[in-house]
Amino acid sequence: MRRVFIIGAGHTKFGRSSVDALSLMLEASKKSMDAAQLSPSEIDQCFYSNAFGFAERQLHIGPLLNTALGIWDRPSITVESACSSGSAALYEAFINIASGNADVCLVAGGERLLHLKTNEATAYFAMGSDYALEGANGATFPGLYALMASAHMRLYHTNEEMLASVAIKNHGNAVHNEYAHFRKSITMSDYMESPYVAYPLRLYDCCPFSDGAAAVILSSEEFARKRVQELVEIVACRRAGGYGSLTQSRDLTSLPAARNATASAFNAAHLTPGDVDVAEVHDCFTIAEIVATEDTGLFPPGSGGKAALEGDTAIGGRIAVNPSGGLKAKGHPVSATGVSQIYELYNQLTENSGKRQVAGAEIGMAHNVGATGGSCTVTLLRRVR
Amino acid sequence: MRRVFIIGAGHTKFGRSSVDALSLMLEASKKSMDAAQLSPSEIDQCFYSNAFGFAERQLHIGPLLNTALGIWDRPSITVESACSSGSAALYEAFINIASGNADVCLVAGGERLLHLKTNEATAYFAMGSDYALEGANGATFPGLYALMASAHMRLYHTNEEMLASVAIKNHGNAVHNEYAHFRKSITMSDYMESPYVAYPLRLYDCCPFSDGAAAVILSSEEFARKRVQELVEIVACRRAGGYGSLTQSRDLTSLPAARNATASAFNAAHLTPGDVDVAEVHDCFTIAEIVATEDTGLFPPGSGGKAALEGDTAIGGRIAVNPSGGLKAKGHPVSATGVSQIYELYNQLTENSGKRQVAGAEIGMAHNVGATGGSCTVTLLRRVR
Repeated sequence: MRRVFIIGAGHTKFGRSSVDALSLMLEASKKSMDAAQLSPSEIDQCFYSNAFGFAERQLHIGPLLNTALGIWDRPSITVESACSSGSAALYEAFINIASGNADVCLVAGGERLLHLKTNEATAYFAMGSDYALEGANGATFPGLYALMASAHMRLYHTNEEMLASVAIKNHGNAVHNEYAHFRKSITMSDYMESPYVAYPLRLYDCCPFSDGAAAVILSSEEFARKRVQELVEIVACRRAGGYGSLTQSRDLTSLPAARNATASAFNAAHLTPGDVDVAEVHDCFTIAEIVATEDTGLFPPGSGGKAALEGDTAIGGRIAVNPSGGLKAKGHPVSATGVSQIYELYNQLTENSGKRQVAGAEIGMAHNVGATGGSCTVTLLRRVR
Repeated sequence: MRRVFIIGAGHTKFGRSSVDALSLMLEASKKSMDAAQLSPSEIDQCFYSNAFGFAERQLHIGPLLNTALGIWDRPSITVESACSSGSAALYEAFINIASGNADVCLVAGGERLLHLKTNEATAYFAMGSDYALEGANGATFPGLYALMASAHMRLYHTNEEMLASVAIKNHGNAVHNEYAHFRKSITMSDYMESPYVAYPLRLYDCCPFSDGAAAVILSSEEFARKRVQELVEIVACRRAGGYGSLTQSRDLTSLPAARNATASAFNAAHLTPGDVDVAEVHDCFTIAEIVATEDTGLFPPGSGGKAALEGDTAIGGRIAVNPSGGLKAKGHPVSATGVSQIYELYNQLTENSGKRQVAGAEIGMAHNVGATGGSCTVTLLRRVR
């Protein structure tokens, strides 16, 4: 297996878009190529992710994107795995380059859902659950994550202030992210005054539906060394599976897929969680970030809430978690999310993150979850000097 | 890159199903494991394809299938590319094994669409076109392939009898396929009396919507040699892209994606089209089979219609094309199709095809097209003695 590098990344504004997912993905793809000073014709294969393409009646988006990029003859596929779709596409691109089957790959994820009515978008998201057991019975994601929050509170005495700390931190970080959906900071009282969506989760515990896209260019070591000055290597990209529905889980305070993907990734990279300087984790709800920081070994089980409350996960804290603002405040255009995490880490490791820069970041970790943990990808990046 | 083998294959009945795609894919997966005498726990990774999952409101089908198979902790992804979805999933499994990243992979594709109203299913299929240019303006696939048929007739004097020959052959072959949607032979007069759907294509030129699933197990050479007696190697699996919509194509009588994937696959395998003993090609319409036999080099450009008329593509002819009955008569459950082609070839190369066996088949070729050629996969299989 060969070494794999990131040589460019692009991002659109997250939020409400007046253009379709195709246009958003095209914009992010072009920006990623500009960043890599890459001509489209240098791309061997394209890996796209657009799990809710049917919301715009457009499947088979690859040939349309490639045609628009002027590389209609290149192979493309769409790769999906609910909310971990973007990182699933990254994973396949990674394997294709590592295997020697490709030298340069484009990975782009994008989504447009805000043109739908809110209840329609909620119904679409629910297709990522075990629909017969969960979605069809009204157990949509806020309710499912509320069960996880309740269990975590009962077992570990996690409290509302801890959940609030995650939201306040991520909203604060997003203020400095020009692409974020919400660029406004919130206070503890804003949080406490926000209505419950699904007890104990309030409005400010939940990420928004967003439109948007992100793209990255991966290449072989040989290509990367010729092309870019600042080298960022994907030292591991591993996936694991979990139960199809939450009913089957024995423990609601931890996701086995996240624990297993984490163990596999750190093992492959010969690193430990203590080596990580900056992490982007899947905070679709505040409780999800707390669980993520525990599942990935950044903090011991049960201590993720306390860590957030005490500022350990702030930029400048022990380990910066979601400096981008996370799904919570940057936004969550489903298939874009896993790629957007890599965009953020790439810019952090190349010191291009402006006011949200984590000083001296050398090792980055991305954690991207599908549904209530049916799938998870953990990716480790390292700045190579 | 390591050698990759097929060690088992499974198939459900194609046609109208009373159970969901999940159940169909589970049935095919279990059958493929039985055929390989494989325990689910021996599987490293799963590659699923279910492009129209939203028709049943169930995305993220991987964790549900893996949980049902008792391997909830294994990673899964869904891979899609319109009607070439099944082979796109195969491609990723192939690369994962070839690279050494996995030893045993399950590939399963399935679909259920017949519970929808016909016009609804037609609208869903049209999402595979360039929707803004084609589908939204009523240019659904029968109309688009009719344009290709008209062009082929004008340029090469292909005629109705030639189109009919493809339908008659494939219906005849499907009589001997217990899993086929239509197991009835048709005559030239049946064909000629069938109504036009989109001139010059008649009802009998068109494949049906079908429900169904197919699965195959891929493994490394080491695993295959320990497990099975009859070895079938995937000597090449290559994909290529084409224009996003038919309007952009300069020539309607040939698909560049098919020509490029073919050239790439034969080059990788050190084989020529003349070496192929049995082929499963993407005959969503009769004209598509004629174009496929030309694009893959089985017959020179313009001679595919004559070859079909003269029996060259029959079982026992120069080169057996679609002994399974093809999409035309076996049926076309979108994401199952590319996997079903491999099922057929695997059984042909291991001499398990009963009354539709192609005598002494050693080399098989599968050709699976997305939409009007936006994507194509060509896979070459060889019996290894």
